[in-house]
Amino acid sequence: MTMTDPIQCYLYEQLAQDLTQSIQEGVYAIGQRLPSLRNISETYAVSLATVIQSYSLLEQAGYIEARPKSGYYVLPWKKFQPNEPPLTQPVIKPTNVSVAQLAMSLIHEARQQHLVKLGAAVPEADILPLASLSRTLAGVSRRHWRSLANYENENGNENLRKQIARLMAESGYRCKSEEVIITNGCLESLNLALRSVAKPSDTIAIESPTYFGILQVIETLGMRALEIPTHPNYGIDPDILQKTVKKQKISACVLIPSFSNPLGACMPDKNKQRVVSLLEQAAIPLIEDDIYGGLSYETPRPKSAKSYDKSGNVIYCSSFSKTVSPGLRIGWILPGRFTEQVRYKKFLGNISTSVHPQIALAEFLERGLYRKNTRRAARIYHRRMEQLKHWISEYFPADTLITQPRGGFLLWLELPKNTNALTLYRNAIDKRIAITPGILFSAQGQYQHHIRLSCGAVEGELARKSLKILGALV
Amino acid sequence: MTMTDPIQCYLYEQLAQDLTQSIQEGVYAIGQRLPSLRNISETYAVSLATVIQSYSLLEQAGYIEARPKSGYYVLPWKKFQPNEPPLTQPVIKPTNVSVAQLAMSLIHEARQQHLVKLGAAVPEADILPLASLSRTLAGVSRRHWRSLANYENENGNENLRKQIARLMAESGYRCKSEEVIITNGCLESLNLALRSVAKPSDTIAIESPTYFGILQVIETLGMRALEIPTHPNYGIDPDILQKTVKKQKISACVLIPSFSNPLGACMPDKNKQRVVSLLEQAAIPLIEDDIYGGLSYETPRPKSAKSYDKSGNVIYCSSFSKTVSPGLRIGWILPGRFTEQVRYKKFLGNISTSVHPQIALAEFLERGLYRKNTRRAARIYHRRMEQLKHWISEYFPADTLITQPRGGFLLWLELPKNTNALTLYRNAIDKRIAITPGILFSAQGQYQHHIRLSCGAVEGELARKSLKILGALV
Repeated sequence: MTMTDPIQCYLYEQLAQDLTQSIQEGVYAIGQRLPSLRNISETYAVSLATVIQSYSLLEQAGYIEARPKSGYYVLPWKKFQPNEPPLTQPVIKPTNVSVAQLAMSLIHEARQQHLVKLGAAVPEADILPLASLSRTLAGVSRRHWRSLANYENENGNENLRKQIARLMAESGYRCKSEEVIITNGCLESLNLALRSVAKPSDTIAIESPTYFGILQVIETLGMRALEIPTHPNYGIDPDILQKTVKKQKISACVLIPSFSNPLGACMPDKNKQRVVSLLEQAAIPLIEDDIYGGLSYETPRPKSAKSYDKSGNVIYCSSFSKTVSPGLRIGWILPGRFTEQVRYKKFLGNISTSVHPQIALAEFLERGLYRKNTRRAARIYHRRMEQLKHWISEYFPADTLITQPRGGFLLWLELPKNTNALTLYRNAIDKRIAITPGILFSAQGQYQHHIRLSCGAVEGELARKSLKILGALV
Repeated sequence: MTMTDPIQCYLYEQLAQDLTQSIQEGVYAIGQRLPSLRNISETYAVSLATVIQSYSLLEQAGYIEARPKSGYYVLPWKKFQPNEPPLTQPVIKPTNVSVAQLAMSLIHEARQQHLVKLGAAVPEADILPLASLSRTLAGVSRRHWRSLANYENENGNENLRKQIARLMAESGYRCKSEEVIITNGCLESLNLALRSVAKPSDTIAIESPTYFGILQVIETLGMRALEIPTHPNYGIDPDILQKTVKKQKISACVLIPSFSNPLGACMPDKNKQRVVSLLEQAAIPLIEDDIYGGLSYETPRPKSAKSYDKSGNVIYCSSFSKTVSPGLRIGWILPGRFTEQVRYKKFLGNISTSVHPQIALAEFLERGLYRKNTRRAARIYHRRMEQLKHWISEYFPADTLITQPRGGFLLWLELPKNTNALTLYRNAIDKRIAITPGILFSAQGQYQHHIRLSCGAVEGELARKSLKILGALV
């Protein structure tokens, strides 16, 4: 049995989660001895080796300890405090964006090899299905060499579009492959969407905080950002959005409804439905970034906003960068009623997307490898996220507020008010730890004592030690 | 010996060219018997098989015929008339572009499998080095699987940038790899260049006629095109350009100085130098599209405009789509003094270009395969171009004017004034032949009795027959 055997991996992670929950709920009280390995093995009908691995995870997470010749005991673990940050309070007026220089210098700095990447929204190589993807790519290169002689259709490879249409059904949206256009990643999808629905100097409503890439794209297109107050766990506030669209002229709204970057927030279904409906009535296109939607800790995954779209007013954007490979550069877009505009702009942007990565991904999806690996990755992130929150509650000041993501690998922290996150960032870099300061996620310079953390690339003892150092710096 | 053996291929093509020249120059007069196969074999020190293949080419081209038991005789070939079209006469005022719909419908129509593609600017699969490229790609996929875990640097793969810097030296421009940014093809390079130097409603000076892709990009960016009179063989007129930049506010100038699309024109060195200098003095950035520059019939290839750039005012754009593979989607840009703007816009457009195609191309260039294959391709296009011109002089009305390209595979025809090229296009489609009507190459609706032809995808008997049909339609 190895760590990479997906079924076994599922078993011991699942068991560890169950046991953690039992401890958190007091089924096994602090100081109490846990059932014997054999007992658990029989109760859960799993092998002894699986139980040992599960207990080892609990030990790593600081929930239990082994006492020689006696068994495993529940430690006085610091009860996790779900200290949820409040609704954000941006100024609701259009703002010119200028996070460019800071963002680029931080991005380049954080790329350095020697850093512990606790802030980057990039998954670890070992979680991605790179080995099987490369084999597929190599096979495609050998078999499909003649396809290199032509530009791929600007809509993208037909088989890949079919596979993506099937994938869309998992988010509750049933469609034909004709609705899908392949892009060079989600950021290209967002560019195409924004350029198809808005002009320079137009106002774009966004979550606050939101992914700095969205802010930067709005900036390079000469548009203005309007930040809407956002709940750290439930996403944009529909009431405030409704009032705002009545008062202000807004050309589009860009949201990450499922497991947002940086909050990890997920809008409840009824909020998604309401936002889709109110924007449709106001004739304001909704651009949905669903790049993390597939990494839900629960199955089925939450519905996409697109699944509530009846008029083609929702432009859906996503990519395989967080689930299969960032370097492959394949994303997609369902432009709804803006399909002609998006298709034309895609064609004139770079004609089409590279042909072999598309054929290979289509095969990869067809063989069920995408689903299998994404579920496995979500389980790993779930476990890591629980550890991450535990260590934060252990090492950070008591008044630290943290979000409660139910998918993805990103977490948002509101640190004590006197903390300067940019200073913290620089001090952490000196200790070889990279985090992402909150100021990047607002066009208004909000979130100066906030940081984004990620469990995508770091785990275990390295994560624990780094968080301990970070906590001390705060 | 097979057609694909490059050395043998070179030999018989070279020999056929030498013999054609001898016939055109009257060394072998009309009606005269050519030297025996054995005689030529000894004179040129090549195999008999090579001589037979060369003679076969001359037969196909209509220069000679075989008479049973007697030998090969020079036919009464129609002397090629270099009827050069005059300087173009566009109206020199900024124009909103709207070729979109026509262009897209023609592009889709011309893609149909069953058509003889006499208009498309796409090279034939057999001329491209697809087999060796695919082998390289397959090897890269196997060996570099971990590189899929990260976004490639937004500048592009370092090895590929080094190889491109070496390639740039062949166009007379010596640079370091730091000047190069990798893109998803030349059209993306042009987009980045235009967006970095101009804003919506700004005026862009262009050659007239010019590649419709350039017109469409100008259109999607909301800019306006200013068409400058252009010599069909020597490119844009420097005198008129100089006068124009003094009178009008121009934000940038986009040129294809070497083997332009659609004319096949090549600006003489002194014109390139003068245009670079006059635009530099007027502080108007020159965007150079050099996608056909490497396909020169003569060596060394003509210098790029960039080679005369002393201040970084020239933004150089190119790609491997015409020489290695269109489906691979790899191009590059040297943004000169606009490097920061271009790099930022590339990053925010799609973060970076797909990683494996870049690594594979770098290996491909490093092993000298690019140079070898591009030279071979240029020889093939040269021979085909001569045949194409010969058949046009044979089958088209006597007052047809044609350009004299010295590189690439595109040719421009001015048909008799009463010809409607769009009607001709539709009639040709009925006969399963696709050509490109001239009206696409102007923002003003110029060139209504002009067409672009290509010898990139069709040759031999099929080309001859199709041109005969086309000539009859005219």
